[in-house]
Amino acid sequence: MSGEKGLVVALSGGIGGAKLALGLYRILPPESLVVVANTGDDFTHLGLHISPDLDTLLYTLAGIDALETGWGRRGETWNFMAALESLGGQSWFRLGDGDLATHVERTRRLAAGESLGAITAEFCRRLGVSALLLPMSEDPVRTRLLTEDGWLDFQDYFVRQGTRPRVREISYRGALKARPHPGFIEALSRPDLAAIVICPSNPFLSIDPILSLPGVRAALKAARAPVVAVSPIAGKRAFKGPTAKLMSELGLEVAAESVLTHYAGLFDHFLADEEDREELSKFDANVSFARIRMESLDDRERIARLVLSLGQGSR
Amino acid sequence: MSGEKGLVVALSGGIGGAKLALGLYRILPPESLVVVANTGDDFTHLGLHISPDLDTLLYTLAGIDALETGWGRRGETWNFMAALESLGGQSWFRLGDGDLATHVERTRRLAAGESLGAITAEFCRRLGVSALLLPMSEDPVRTRLLTEDGWLDFQDYFVRQGTRPRVREISYRGALKARPHPGFIEALSRPDLAAIVICPSNPFLSIDPILSLPGVRAALKAARAPVVAVSPIAGKRAFKGPTAKLMSELGLEVAAESVLTHYAGLFDHFLADEEDREELSKFDANVSFARIRMESLDDRERIARLVLSLGQGSR
Repeated sequence: MSGEKGLVVALSGGIGGAKLALGLYRILPPESLVVVANTGDDFTHLGLHISPDLDTLLYTLAGIDALETGWGRRGETWNFMAALESLGGQSWFRLGDGDLATHVERTRRLAAGESLGAITAEFCRRLGVSALLLPMSEDPVRTRLLTEDGWLDFQDYFVRQGTRPRVREISYRGALKARPHPGFIEALSRPDLAAIVICPSNPFLSIDPILSLPGVRAALKAARAPVVAVSPIAGKRAFKGPTAKLMSELGLEVAAESVLTHYAGLFDHFLADEEDREELSKFDANVSFARIRMESLDDRERIARLVLSLGQGSR
Repeated sequence: MSGEKGLVVALSGGIGGAKLALGLYRILPPESLVVVANTGDDFTHLGLHISPDLDTLLYTLAGIDALETGWGRRGETWNFMAALESLGGQSWFRLGDGDLATHVERTRRLAAGESLGAITAEFCRRLGVSALLLPMSEDPVRTRLLTEDGWLDFQDYFVRQGTRPRVREISYRGALKARPHPGFIEALSRPDLAAIVICPSNPFLSIDPILSLPGVRAALKAARAPVVAVSPIAGKRAFKGPTAKLMSELGLEVAAESVLTHYAGLFDHFLADEEDREELSKFDANVSFARIRMESLDDRERIARLVLSLGQGSR
């Protein structure tokens, strides 16, 4: 079975994961990619349902993502935000004028009884995205953090407080009762499943919420295709600031080794950075090495190809 | 009692009425003007509570109205609308990026239990408007039109269908059970009330909803200050297109005379255009004449001064 022929399922958070998701999307044939997005960061703000990771993935796959920030839309304007501030509205979560359309239309459709998955599929269709982009669940799961200031909602911690409070514990409220999206489980059981990819997103804030859903770990184990995990850390530096800070606060060394250990038993192949070859050589696991920072579009495609080649053959 | 010393209460719809409201606002001392806005055009769109006349008045008094259209904000951008269209959202009602902040913040505050009046007062405070701008009622009143296509909601008729369907009848749904805003009735009973102004708005679509609220006509009659009505028609041409079409369909001549007759018994002074002097000379009523088209800011102030001078002295 070739990784470039069958179905690929990628688990992803926002910015870091979206880079690899885009690489996979660009090299795979149409309709060969299912991207399962973390919705643990979803929240209601100004009365609007906001799904940050779904949106980052949607904009990235549609080629309308803001290249400079990694989140939001390209060529965004900020008149809504300026007007909202002038009226005394909450401005700690920056909503661009174009981005706002996604939240307003999603909220309207949810209120009309449509599912988050169906709405996302319609947005993908409208924006010409042929990958299947799925929320991890239709049920609410909310990542919360126990900090020195008490329990904080994710966006409060992450955006309003800029990840400043020290984190002691993480919980995924609602996860135990949430069902994984039916399309996610269905994809994992597909006979043409070629690979399952754990994108280089924050393991604790982006991937664990997905893995915490009942049945997901079992379905990953039962799937006939190999699981390839990509490290979000290279040379003891996380690609994104908050990952390193969070890992330290959780008592973990900021190192690919910590991620590998965290994902132990879950993956068949682990892709780490060249810089970490020595550190990881002691492990028995199937670890491969490459330059895994994805700066250019070529990097994204190169890592995607490598991931799929690792996934070739049965488990 | 001088019209420039006491309190002035102006009843107004959107664009036409807002011109005179601005004139009054500019010549009166701070906190001497109460503007009561029609909310019969309010509606829920994309899950947002939209109050078109309140907003036109808010933006006009704050000096941030779009000069070219008469509605919406100055220097508006339209990225939300473009993005919404790309997602397949409803685009018949044009919401500018800055304007959207008003609707989102108002909807959020309403959902949190604040009243429309309190929200409007806060917006005025934030935007530096010292007039008291009031919704005519906190209760929902919805202007509906019986047309050849059946009953239509106001915005459906006015915006989506561009006033094309012929109107046979108008109703103000909810008016019989709605209470006028307490601040409105309180203002009408103030001992320092100097004048009540019926702005040159559409009598049927903007002023009648206010007059249809229980107790309003009685309170206007009981008030110690004179009522001055300004014609929205000059020389058999309405200042705004829909007024003329609507009047014809309701079987009325498009003439200041029709408005004067419609308001009979309500006003103490009627201000009409010079062009209509001959036509209106047959009336016994206190009719005054001037060039009443308000094109410049000077026109607005000139008419406002004239209106207040007509209102001088007791009834």
